[in-house]
Parts: sequence; C-alpha cells; structure tokens
Amino acid sequence: MNVPASSSSAPRGPRPIRIAITTGEPAGVGPELTAAALAGASAHWPDAEFVVLGDRALLEARAASAGVDWAAVQAGQKVSVEHVALAAPSKAGKLDVANGPYVLALLDRAIDGAVAHEFDAIVTAPLQKSTINDAGVPFTGHTEYLAERTHTPRVVMMLAGTGARPLRVALATTHLPLKDVPAALTIDGLLETLRIVNHDLRHHFGVPTPRILVTGLNPHAGENGYLGREEIETISPALAKAATEGIDARGPYPADTLFQPRYLNEADCVLAMFHDQGLPVLKYATFGEGINVTLGLPIVRTSVDHGTALDLAGTGRADAGSLIAAIDTAVSMARHRRAIQ
Amino acid sequence: MNVPASSSSAPRGPRPIRIAITTGEPAGVGPELTAAALAGASAHWPDAEFVVLGDRALLEARAASAGVDWAAVQAGQKVSVEHVALAAPSKAGKLDVANGPYVLALLDRAIDGAVAHEFDAIVTAPLQKSTINDAGVPFTGHTEYLAERTHTPRVVMMLAGTGARPLRVALATTHLPLKDVPAALTIDGLLETLRIVNHDLRHHFGVPTPRILVTGLNPHAGENGYLGREEIETISPALAKAATEGIDARGPYPADTLFQPRYLNEADCVLAMFHDQGLPVLKYATFGEGINVTLGLPIVRTSVDHGTALDLAGTGRADAGSLIAAIDTAVSMARHRRAIQ
Repeated sequence: MNVPASSSSAPRGPRPIRIAITTGEPAGVGPELTAAALAGASAHWPDAEFVVLGDRALLEARAASAGVDWAAVQAGQKVSVEHVALAAPSKAGKLDVANGPYVLALLDRAIDGAVAHEFDAIVTAPLQKSTINDAGVPFTGHTEYLAERTHTPRVVMMLAGTGARPLRVALATTHLPLKDVPAALTIDGLLETLRIVNHDLRHHFGVPTPRILVTGLNPHAGENGYLGREEIETISPALAKAATEGIDARGPYPADTLFQPRYLNEADCVLAMFHDQGLPVLKYATFGEGINVTLGLPIVRTSVDHGTALDLAGTGRADAGSLIAAIDTAVSMARHRRAIQ
Repeated sequence: MNVPASSSSAPRGPRPIRIAITTGEPAGVGPELTAAALAGASAHWPDAEFVVLGDRALLEARAASAGVDWAAVQAGQKVSVEHVALAAPSKAGKLDVANGPYVLALLDRAIDGAVAHEFDAIVTAPLQKSTINDAGVPFTGHTEYLAERTHTPRVVMMLAGTGARPLRVALATTHLPLKDVPAALTIDGLLETLRIVNHDLRHHFGVPTPRILVTGLNPHAGENGYLGREEIETISPALAKAATEGIDARGPYPADTLFQPRYLNEADCVLAMFHDQGLPVLKYATFGEGINVTLGLPIVRTSVDHGTALDLAGTGRADAGSLIAAIDTAVSMARHRRAIQ
C-alpha cells in the first residue's frame, strides 16, 4: 500500500488526523473544489493532514483554473497527492465513460485505507453515477457502495449544516420510489436506524445524550390514524422500544411543525421518514454549506451535498463551502472518534 | 342578512374592501389574535373595513387578555363585530363540543356573505376539527368545507410567506395518507391544478405571467425513471399540456434542489406533489408569518398557517404575525380581484 509521503512528517505529539479526499468525477468540480478547500488547510485544520487521491496533472490543471497555487499548498507538507492515473485525459464538463473505473479506484483506495486505519476519515467529492454505470459497474450511490465494501448491513444517510448547533437530518429511507416508502418502514428497521444515529452522534459527534426528533410518515403525523396508520403501527412502537434502550427519540411529530426553532432548538437530530420530507428544508436551511455523513460505517465518511456541477467545472466559479464544511466535519468526527478509543 | 353597521360609513370614493374574519374555535387563540391583529387596522389597511364574526362577550374578554382596548379598536369604525352567540360559555384552552355548531355558523356566515358579494374576502382563524366532528358534523378541514359549500369541484391549497417576492407553495395533493399519494396524481388533475394556480396568481395576486416550478414525486425527480416513473408518465405529460395552454410551468425538479435561491428567485410559485414535500420548507422559511390561501374558489379566502394553540389561549402570548399576514394577503387579493372586474 502506498503510504502518503507526508505521513513521516509528524513524529512529535499525537499523530495528526489523516484525511483522504477522493476528488471524484474528473470532468466535474471535485478536483478544483479540493484545491480551493485545501488552500487554507494549515490555518483551518492545523492538526490534520490530507491525502488527495487523484491524477496529479488533472489536479494541477484544475487548481490553476480555480486560481490556487497548488505547489504552494503542497509545500506546507499538510497536503500530499497520491497519484492515481486517469484512463483518458479529462476535459472539464465532458463526461468520459473511460474514466468510470478511475473514479471507483479513488473510492476503493480511500475506503480500504480507512478500514486499515491508515486514514482517520474520508471525504468524498461528487461523482457521476452514470459514468460508472455506463462503464459496466452497477452503482446506486456513494452511500450504498460504502456499505457494501465495508460489509455493513445498515447505514444511515444524514445531512447536516454547520455551526454550534447545526441542523441535522437523518433519513429512515433514502433512494426509493415514493410508492415503496410505506412498506419499507418497519419497527426493527427504524429501531436499528435510531440505534445507529444515537451511537454515532455520541461517539463521532461528541453529543453525550443525543435527542432525536422523529417525523411521522403521513401529513400531520397521521392525525391519530385518520390520515394513515404507520405512526401507530410502526413508528410509535419503534420509539417505545428505543426508549427501553435509553435512546431519547421523540415523536412522531408532523414534519411541517417539527422544523421550527422551538423544536429544533431542543434537538440534536431529526429523523425523517423519507428523502423529500427531510432534505428540502435541510438544504434550504444550510444553503450551500450542507454536508452528507454516512452513519453506521466502521469508518468516518463525509461528503458534499451537491453534484458534479458539470456546467461550472473548470470555471473556478464553483463554491467550495460544502466541501470545506465536509472536511471540517470529518476532522471533528475523527477527533471525537480518536478521543474515545 | 345582517349587514354590518360599518357598511354605511363609506359613501365617498370607492367602496372600502370589506373583510369578514371568522374567529374560529372559541377556546383557542383565534379571538385574541383577531383583536391583536385589528388593533392596527386603520394604519395597516386604510382602505379596508373588517366584520368580525363571533360572540361579542367572548371577543371583549379575549381582547382584554391580549392587552387590546377592544372598544377603542371598534370606535374607529373600520372594525365592527357581528354577534354570533356561543352555545356555551367558553374557557380558554378548554374544548367544548357544545360550541361545534357555533364555529360552523361563523364559517357559513362568512362564506355565504362572500358568495353574495357582501364581503370581498374572508380570513379564517383556526378551528378545532375534533370539536366539529364530535358535535356530529363530518369535517375534514376548512379547505374541503369551503369547496363543498361553494360547489367548487377542485380547489388548491397554497401556503405562502410575505414580502416583495414571497415563497409560495401550492400542493397537488393535501391531506392524504402518504401511501395514497402516487395514485392520486393524474395528468388531468395536475393540469387542472396548474390552471387554477396560474389563474389565481394572475387575477388575485397580480402576477401577469406566473412562473410555476413543479417538483417531482420521487427522490431526485425519479432520476430518469430509475427511482419511480410518475415523473415520466404523469407529471411531464401534464406540464406539456399546460404549456400548450400558455401556462409557464417547469419541471419536474428534485424537491431538494428546487428550494434554493437560484431557482426560487425566478419563480412565482412552487407546485409540490404532496403535503410533507412542500410544507416543512415553507413553514421553516416563513417562520410564524406564513399564510394559507385556498385557490380555485369563487371567493377570496386566506387563513393562518397554524392551529388553535390551546396552551396559549387566554395568555396573550400568541403571536398575531400569521393572522396579520393573512389579512394583508386577503386585502391585497381583494384589491387585485376588484381591479380586474
């Protein structure tokens, strides 16, 4: 395994937090956002070092397009590139199926390195699912791929903002057609989801006793069964079981009432039942600085909450806010995780 | 019919806009919020007059609890009370099924008066559905009741904020169990909904050429059929038909992408497919100043976006922001409507 050059540079004090960054789809904004985000690495994350996974020449070119002096960034010894060669030269904004395996190779390297404790966390820039699928590898998303490669039976997707008391929204179901959502909710599944959220908030986010607010599935949380019975038959029983395990999960609450300051101010996380119930408000609220965290994995993984933005690639106009927030969260999670080991 | 006393006081200039306010559940915050909102009526709405429907003694008592000099408010001749007697005395916070018919009587009076052009608009304070149902009258909500009493086959619920370019969210389906939502969406139903939204934004909101952004039903708007086919089979065909009628309705867009400034800044309204897809973000964004408008009716009707808040009733601590916004919108809608008649 290719140990990054900078790993030998921190013999004094505790070992720095080491973060792998997968630069994602080469035709997208991932490479230039990585350069832009790491331009301030020494100042923002003095106790961390970064291993950037990607094609060296691509990174140089895209850093330049974003106005970043990439050589200077690496000179600080906090940032190193681990070269993974593109299969074909990449033009900004032009997808090329030949590079599908490249994108996966970055991801595999990061996951395997994190599992082997070489990296304390991985941060993933956006990829284009179609490039991978068109290259003949079935791929539904980062989250599912991470679960599979780390042999994790259940993971939880959580999106979050930043700040002292960030809005966090975890999802009980993720990328399912809406019509399949009601049947996908089970007492045991919800209970396991609550356990994961509770565990990871405690151990990776430093929340001693997480309070989780849980939405209903139906409008007005079913209005006592009048607008649906899943709250009575599935969600409430799961909450009751969680309570016996000492998990502070409350609800089910109407989703359009829950996302109000008087509720959110008392919550560490909202568990929404499905994608479009929880994410529109989360993304509205976090506005370009949202991040995506996969809970339940044996490794720490954060991500931007946006896509490859092909139309902005190579222009230097894409906003690195979400990637900076994702790195910030990964560093913080890795610190918490290390503190309890 | 009981013509309000103040109707004779405006012989000069155009007839004032006349608004009926139903004070709703007597045990809730409706009566005191009405008093609080109308305390500034002359300053806020100089060209309007208000007919407050409710029990005179109740209104006096609750106005006092909110610190409002109710006699002084009425002395300005802009505000009059049309007395409707309670069936039983009402204590703040204590529901009494005996007053179910009272709540309905307020509503009937307002609707019938608006249909007869006695009122230019009606504004409804919150009621408690259970009080009416427990009194033996099946009642699913204001919106449905208004549709039925005015013989309107299809109405559209729209929630909105305030300000120069307010966020507005209309719903293709409203109070349905989530599992029934996919089947409730049809090409013809969506087309009719788009016609209503387009018509009312033009004629009641003064938007010359409304631009409506439409969500998908499924996560990521179905991702080209990969996460559901309703976008392809139902929503897109409805949008194509709407386009042939000159309706500027675009989409379907992923709900978690759509609610971002770069989309919203170009939109007059979002059409969401279901309750919990559109309302959490709307209520988060409007934060206590949201309003509810029923589109498609032969009359103008606005409402608060909150419930009876029984725990706050009689304390004077409830916030009149939403009711003030609802009155504001009703006055504005009535003006636009009158201008085109």
